[in-house]
Amino acid sequence: MTELSTRFTRALGVRHPIVSAPMAFAGGGALAAAVTRAGGLGLVGGGYGDPAWLEEQFDAAGDQRIGVGFITWSLRKSPSLLTNVLKHRPAAVMLSFGDPHPFADEIRAAGALLVCQCQDMEHVIDAVDAGANVVVAQGGEAGGHGALRGTLTFVPEAADFLARHAPDTLLLAAGGIADGRGLAAALMLGADGVLVGTRLWASKEALVKQRHHQAIVEANGDGTLRTRVADIARQIPWPKGFTARIASNAFTARWHGREDELEKNVAVEGPRYRQAFAAGDPDNTAVWFGEAAGLVHAIEPAADVLQRMVDDAVLRLERHGGATLS
Amino acid sequence: MTELSTRFTRALGVRHPIVSAPMAFAGGGALAAAVTRAGGLGLVGGGYGDPAWLEEQFDAAGDQRIGVGFITWSLRKSPSLLTNVLKHRPAAVMLSFGDPHPFADEIRAAGALLVCQCQDMEHVIDAVDAGANVVVAQGGEAGGHGALRGTLTFVPEAADFLARHAPDTLLLAAGGIADGRGLAAALMLGADGVLVGTRLWASKEALVKQRHHQAIVEANGDGTLRTRVADIARQIPWPKGFTARIASNAFTARWHGREDELEKNVAVEGPRYRQAFAAGDPDNTAVWFGEAAGLVHAIEPAADVLQRMVDDAVLRLERHGGATLS
Repeated sequence: MTELSTRFTRALGVRHPIVSAPMAFAGGGALAAAVTRAGGLGLVGGGYGDPAWLEEQFDAAGDQRIGVGFITWSLRKSPSLLTNVLKHRPAAVMLSFGDPHPFADEIRAAGALLVCQCQDMEHVIDAVDAGANVVVAQGGEAGGHGALRGTLTFVPEAADFLARHAPDTLLLAAGGIADGRGLAAALMLGADGVLVGTRLWASKEALVKQRHHQAIVEANGDGTLRTRVADIARQIPWPKGFTARIASNAFTARWHGREDELEKNVAVEGPRYRQAFAAGDPDNTAVWFGEAAGLVHAIEPAADVLQRMVDDAVLRLERHGGATLS
Repeated sequence: MTELSTRFTRALGVRHPIVSAPMAFAGGGALAAAVTRAGGLGLVGGGYGDPAWLEEQFDAAGDQRIGVGFITWSLRKSPSLLTNVLKHRPAAVMLSFGDPHPFADEIRAAGALLVCQCQDMEHVIDAVDAGANVVVAQGGEAGGHGALRGTLTFVPEAADFLARHAPDTLLLAAGGIADGRGLAAALMLGADGVLVGTRLWASKEALVKQRHHQAIVEANGDGTLRTRVADIARQIPWPKGFTARIASNAFTARWHGREDELEKNVAVEGPRYRQAFAAGDPDNTAVWFGEAAGLVHAIEPAADVLQRMVDDAVLRLERHGGATLS
């Protein structure tokens, strides 16, 4: 079996430098456990804070060593979620989309690694200041919430900052990484590993309805956009600066660019959105994948995704990406 | 001297798999010649079609083997520009932002390589159909005009398409590539080389005013945005779907998001913009660099930029990006 070890695998004692993104709703205990079992580190998506759901997911993960991720601005409204989750002794807690400082001490005191996902250089500075063990530099190619920096420039810029100011902090690349090429490229850019969302959203273990899975197999990478319409329909008050990348479909065609109209009609459109989502309708609700959709051609077990990523990355690294050096 | 050869270097008979972006106004003959002399392939920026300027630039390049790039939708308004330029026997003609078909035959008949820069998968399909010798997959990280796909997902998706449909067509990655890490990552993603804009805009040979150069040295990668305001102020009718990434400054703070207002005031604001640009004012005009700004720390000769890119890429490739394989 091919192996690819980095500072990240050695520091965490895992086989592969691959972490699953803590995707709200889609990233449950089964996926997290499958990723850990396959040699990576699985993270459960803490989402918007449903304590019963979170307990179920930790139960579903059984005795696998997993972590959890939270939407930081949302966690501030119900910080007991974190306290309860820490009783499960997660290996890592990832905070994204908000100031990590209020939670850093509690996470470290529980013996969990503090992982801070960042969308721009100011976030990286904050993460280092909060004592992050791992920084995730997330580019806007990512599915779901994020911002505008591109992964290709953000990762090396973050790496330069960490080299100067926090050389022991590990760096993961996120946003658009779906195969061995993306993993190998991330290492070239200076990352110690990768955080994978979309490609694992498209796995058998993800909590995703069948017709949403079918949509990603049919889409290419042009078929997504960053927009606020899903959050408006769900009445989730995301802070300014963050949007969600979702599939281009009838829902986005109807409302993207008409956000004010959607807000006015949310009493009708909100329940309609939620019903469509619950029913697995791929047209009248958000479908949560990113630009890596163009690199996804089948819904597979997470273990197969991870092993192929590593095998292909090792091949490309051994062959210097097809270049001849002299 | 370190060397890095790929399908691109072998097909073109150049030493480095690096092409300079044909940047309107900034990419003149001196830069193109310097890039070619340093082992890459330099392209003059054909811009919006000033035949006298183009002649001067070919004169300035002397007997170096260079190419030229055009804004395709603009070239359609004055196709004689292409006919005149082909008399200089350019090694390559790059077409970007529009349908390449009307010009493909004339370019090939003149013995020049047809290079098509693409911003999404539809453009790639068109480029192959037009018989492109080289496809450039340009991500939205790029400075200047472009669109929204991220380089990290677009390049491998384009590579997959070419492998199936046009395996002899070469692929360059563009958008956010400014150092050896970006070059090495591009090779991992499946590119045969890179097209470099921002990093060479920040070179001594680029036709860029001193205070604009100073602005990129001071900026980090968060300090840019994609916007239409420069084109509105200049009254250049760019087709829908393309925006320009430029520095965030007083000009963009004033007008971005107030595009209608700018259009109404263009009789005053247009001349003001052009005067500021001509004067090298970095605040009241567009400053044309991309997200790679965060990776640029000095204005250097193009030859130094190229050699360091190659040296660093070779080092990273040899070391497998710091990973241990087994």
